[in-house]
Amino acid sequence: MKVCSGIDEIRNYIKEVNLTDIVLVPTMGALHEGHLSLVRLARSVSSNVCVSIFVNPTQFGPGEDFGAYPRTLKKDLDLLEQEGVALVFTPTPDIMYKNNQTLIQNQTLSSILCGVSRPIHFGGVLTVVAKLFNIIQPCWAVFGEKDYQQLKIIEKMVLDLNFPIKILPGPIIRETSGLAKSSRNSYLTDQQKDQASGIYKTLLLLKEEVAKGNLDQKAIESLFVDKLKKYPLLEVEYVKVLNNNLEEISTIEKGTRVFVAVRVGSTRLIDNLELL
Amino acid sequence: MKVCSGIDEIRNYIKEVNLTDIVLVPTMGALHEGHLSLVRLARSVSSNVCVSIFVNPTQFGPGEDFGAYPRTLKKDLDLLEQEGVALVFTPTPDIMYKNNQTLIQNQTLSSILCGVSRPIHFGGVLTVVAKLFNIIQPCWAVFGEKDYQQLKIIEKMVLDLNFPIKILPGPIIRETSGLAKSSRNSYLTDQQKDQASGIYKTLLLLKEEVAKGNLDQKAIESLFVDKLKKYPLLEVEYVKVLNNNLEEISTIEKGTRVFVAVRVGSTRLIDNLELL
Repeated sequence: MKVCSGIDEIRNYIKEVNLTDIVLVPTMGALHEGHLSLVRLARSVSSNVCVSIFVNPTQFGPGEDFGAYPRTLKKDLDLLEQEGVALVFTPTPDIMYKNNQTLIQNQTLSSILCGVSRPIHFGGVLTVVAKLFNIIQPCWAVFGEKDYQQLKIIEKMVLDLNFPIKILPGPIIRETSGLAKSSRNSYLTDQQKDQASGIYKTLLLLKEEVAKGNLDQKAIESLFVDKLKKYPLLEVEYVKVLNNNLEEISTIEKGTRVFVAVRVGSTRLIDNLELL
Repeated sequence: MKVCSGIDEIRNYIKEVNLTDIVLVPTMGALHEGHLSLVRLARSVSSNVCVSIFVNPTQFGPGEDFGAYPRTLKKDLDLLEQEGVALVFTPTPDIMYKNNQTLIQNQTLSSILCGVSRPIHFGGVLTVVAKLFNIIQPCWAVFGEKDYQQLKIIEKMVLDLNFPIKILPGPIIRETSGLAKSSRNSYLTDQQKDQASGIYKTLLLLKEEVAKGNLDQKAIESLFVDKLKKYPLLEVEYVKVLNNNLEEISTIEKGTRVFVAVRVGSTRLIDNLELL
């Protein structure tokens, strides 16, 4: 497994060893089973897996957890080596940004759901992902469905800007308790973690309610708020029922999803589930 | 010379005939000697020249000349064939845009000079150029210095987003009168054209003034406004003295340029000249 931190360095390496059919897995490190499942999905399409590890400052707003975000590079590299990854890209902010002026934004999907409380987030994400695409030039790139809005906005960028790359979505991986795996779970106390598992339990209740025939999205959204009161440490930031292209719907139908963001103390967790 | 209008069509053609080392010359058609000089510059670096002809609607503001912009496809193709171009891409707006949401913008350089009167222009330019880069995947791309601000904003996008493409700037080509060649010159009456040649004559006066030792950029800008009064059909939109990265300077030095936009009736002309 080759590890490169420089842009010219990784480009030259890819050229030297003639690494083709690359599948890219962009991450911010602090790797957990969710990331590793994406790496395994990547390996299923090509043996030339490249993982990037970069805590991207431009997708964090003021007062967010850029400084506190867990950084566990040594452990991450060990895990990736075990997964048979070919190449790891570990740049620093100085390497990635030099008086940058160019920003990529989604004019429609960036201002809903997580975009309400994180207005600069998706611009930062799209821009760094485009940079990684142009540096690594993969044939495929893998993104997890846990960050479903991110996945959709990136898929749309690939279509809109004609990147010659196929996006592969990976399913959400959960703790035994149901809590969606996230690097930010490390911020939680045991008690908070226990209550946070209520998010998925409540999402499952919504799915049952839909299965019973309740197809009114507003009623389902209200039910989430109501049922989550059982967990006093959890505070709903948003709950929204949309189709799988993040568009408003008039009634719940095949492919409809529920999207939630919940605060547990100062930690912000997101999750989503297909309802039908 | 192969002509393709579809995105999959041109990608498949490039793959089929294994066209490598492509140099791209993006144009909006209505080709003149300025464009042909860019094509010849392209041919000097690779025999695999691809020219795109696309009047891009997203870079025209409301009330601008998108509808009136000259379209001379048959003549353009004849000229490109004579220049030994390998491939021409002639998409339509429907092919290029399908409910697009993703926009690339320069946060700094898009709001000065032409960006003041054309606030959406450079976002449209960057986005379509990124699309062309991803569709054609050239090694080089050629842009003229007549649209100097465009050239700089594209160069910065290539750096900021790490496109693996080298930008080649081509010098301004002028009529015998000195008027910079532009597809929009076709809008001018003979009388307007005659007066429009005063733009370059006045730029040359500024250069002489600088050569005499007047290095005060504000004085040079004022001199342009003053001297242009000789041509009553011309109305100055802006005149600005900046360095060759479009940054403000405290005094005129090597690489300083003067940038102007001038209205002649309803036609808007731009020009620029290195002062020192």
